[in-house]
Amino acid sequence: MTRDLTIAEVRLTPILVADPPLLNTQGVHQPYTPRLIVELVTADGVTGFGETYGDTKYLELARPLAERLTGRSVMDVNGLFGIDLGVDASRVEGQVDAGGLRGVQSADKLRLSVLSAFEVACLDAQGKALGLPVHALLGGKVRDSVEYSAYLFYKWARHPAGVACEQDDWGAALDPAGVVRQARLLKERHGFTSFKLKGGVFPPDEEVAAVRALAEAFPGHPLRLDPNGAWSVETSLKVAKELGDVLEYLEDPALGTAAMAEVSAGTAVPLATNMCVTTFGEIKEAFTRDAVQVVLCDHHYWGGLRNTRQLAAVCAAFGVGVSMHSNTHLGISLAAMTQVAATVPGLHHACDSHYPWQSEDVLTERLRFRDGRVAVLDAPGLGVELDRDELARLHRRWADDDGALRDRDDAAAMRVAEPGWRQPVMPRW
Amino acid sequence: MTRDLTIAEVRLTPILVADPPLLNTQGVHQPYTPRLIVELVTADGVTGFGETYGDTKYLELARPLAERLTGRSVMDVNGLFGIDLGVDASRVEGQVDAGGLRGVQSADKLRLSVLSAFEVACLDAQGKALGLPVHALLGGKVRDSVEYSAYLFYKWARHPAGVACEQDDWGAALDPAGVVRQARLLKERHGFTSFKLKGGVFPPDEEVAAVRALAEAFPGHPLRLDPNGAWSVETSLKVAKELGDVLEYLEDPALGTAAMAEVSAGTAVPLATNMCVTTFGEIKEAFTRDAVQVVLCDHHYWGGLRNTRQLAAVCAAFGVGVSMHSNTHLGISLAAMTQVAATVPGLHHACDSHYPWQSEDVLTERLRFRDGRVAVLDAPGLGVELDRDELARLHRRWADDDGALRDRDDAAAMRVAEPGWRQPVMPRW
Repeated sequence: MTRDLTIAEVRLTPILVADPPLLNTQGVHQPYTPRLIVELVTADGVTGFGETYGDTKYLELARPLAERLTGRSVMDVNGLFGIDLGVDASRVEGQVDAGGLRGVQSADKLRLSVLSAFEVACLDAQGKALGLPVHALLGGKVRDSVEYSAYLFYKWARHPAGVACEQDDWGAALDPAGVVRQARLLKERHGFTSFKLKGGVFPPDEEVAAVRALAEAFPGHPLRLDPNGAWSVETSLKVAKELGDVLEYLEDPALGTAAMAEVSAGTAVPLATNMCVTTFGEIKEAFTRDAVQVVLCDHHYWGGLRNTRQLAAVCAAFGVGVSMHSNTHLGISLAAMTQVAATVPGLHHACDSHYPWQSEDVLTERLRFRDGRVAVLDAPGLGVELDRDELARLHRRWADDDGALRDRDDAAAMRVAEPGWRQPVMPRW
Repeated sequence: MTRDLTIAEVRLTPILVADPPLLNTQGVHQPYTPRLIVELVTADGVTGFGETYGDTKYLELARPLAERLTGRSVMDVNGLFGIDLGVDASRVEGQVDAGGLRGVQSADKLRLSVLSAFEVACLDAQGKALGLPVHALLGGKVRDSVEYSAYLFYKWARHPAGVACEQDDWGAALDPAGVVRQARLLKERHGFTSFKLKGGVFPPDEEVAAVRALAEAFPGHPLRLDPNGAWSVETSLKVAKELGDVLEYLEDPALGTAAMAEVSAGTAVPLATNMCVTTFGEIKEAFTRDAVQVVLCDHHYWGGLRNTRQLAAVCAAFGVGVSMHSNTHLGISLAAMTQVAATVPGLHHACDSHYPWQSEDVLTERLRFRDGRVAVLDAPGLGVELDRDELARLHRRWADDDGALRDRDDAAAMRVAEPGWRQPVMPRW
């Protein structure tokens, strides 16, 4: 047992990855989205991979952190989270994040969003060095595959004319028929059997009609609708009443814990969130007020895989369900999500993943959904390998960008098509 | 990296260890107390150690469990907790445990009290096989030593005449002067700088006087008083008022979450518990009602070291403090407590430990308190070794026992001295 688990080198590679024109209440996805790939190399030459948001504010914290990590052990994950990243709280507290889709920004959340990529890379390196899959480092898998839901979006066929971008073959989805068509395609390609529609894009009646159409096309399949807090309490309750018979849960119908608690008190439809409970500090109020019944964990901003397990424990203690949220991400993160999800006993809802929308990846071999599930890999670490040529290509795209796409801005992307578009005032409806 | 982490053999060794005549509200410690030593041997011959309660009801669950573990991996700790031990809930739900000092018995708690010893043994074996200390498997230590408090007891000089027992040199402590003398001795021998008095033995005024005497003898030192739920809400509030200026916290003054919430609402003195919050299922009510400000975790009945970390996470999310409870235990458990305590960031109170009262141990080398602290060992696993001769000797004592001491019964021990003694009706005062 002679291994040197000391971090000898840290590599950070910001990249831009192609993203289709997916609509949400804040705007539309830009043609490319920034991600940061983290590599930790041990003294023995073992490399661990991590992935997180790649916007400038994350890079600005990741770079000085990277310089402080050499000489530390990849085993010392608790110590990693004790490092002060010097986040300037006054710059972030209370602001919504770039996309406005992940709740209130805070110094803590920003810090954890950066650290999580390093935590995952530490676990990957640990696993590779010790010859164990990451799930074993988390106590062992309790299932051999993890279920994901089909993530449906209102979508344009193309990014606006004149914008440099990759093409996709998904076509448009702007009405109930389009949404059902997209759902069929996702099911056909990946076998998903539950469906989530990203809402908050069109007036609630149209989105209710889309979910009704899904319920008719896929009877008995779990369905979810997520308007990202775009509705008033009144509208939320109206939709809950109209769709109560077909919804597995309603996700963030209204903004903030107070409004969610009001909605929750008025409906039997479970409420899920990735917006009002996004940090450990937000749990107490939400749980005490019974504002949410399912917390959608995102290991990126909750602070990694071990924190995901801790969140699951908090949820279990309060009888609150837990599942996984997803933002645009690549295969390293899908592998990480799958490894940790495999270890959480009370995972009763299919997890979300944007992965089917990403035509590009940095892995030598893309992860696959079979019957809507991703197999839990038993290879050491995360069980994935980097495609360095592809990583370099996506990094060049980032390096060549004039800065316009280095920070995700769904409203800016929307303004290309609708020049008068502004960040909407909530509730929109 | 060719290791076989499969469990090839499981050894269970029930033992009886000497225990001084320490008084509590239920009675007095018997001259010997049962513990169970668990050994898991991997196919490679690595042995992991664990320790838990040794009463018959635990042995009855541990034995069939042991038979089911061969062939499993010591890495598969999550799977371990998925094993159905077949606890007959109707036999245990709602009853107080043998000592009546650890809250309401439940099937879940009984199950976890058994599994925890196997979890610790798994982690010890993992660490030894991988060449890593247990704290590294838990994410790494955030401190190099863990602080413990001096655990003061009202105490007779000797077990009742005619009872076979070991002698101890601590003498009696039955009044304020005796308690202070004991505190001085504990400080002298182990360097403790905070003190907890096990109360509920004498009328509250006497115990208040003892704490006052401690405050005078050790000005500025954190002091605690724990009557194990023997007081009414009214008495609890009276004591809190009288000792508010010197108490770090008051531990379980009244029985159950409802009474604790009432006390909590009426005093600024923090309340700690190892009786009303003893399982994850009890957290919601207690935290929602702000019944306790510090949870004293006992890894034996919370289900091991990983659950201890999860409990700490729940507490942190709710702004509740966390520290460690102790029952009679030996060095394997002290090593386990120290390893996990070293990894919990928000540990702001010295942990409890009965260890100084145990003249016997199954380790080749006793763990030591220096300045009231136990050093966090960096050797593989728990970093301790079994003294097999001593283990065999203590097991013979168990085997030779006619059954009278195989189940802890503080009331029975009390009846030897006071034939009319009965389990007290709570609240006593």
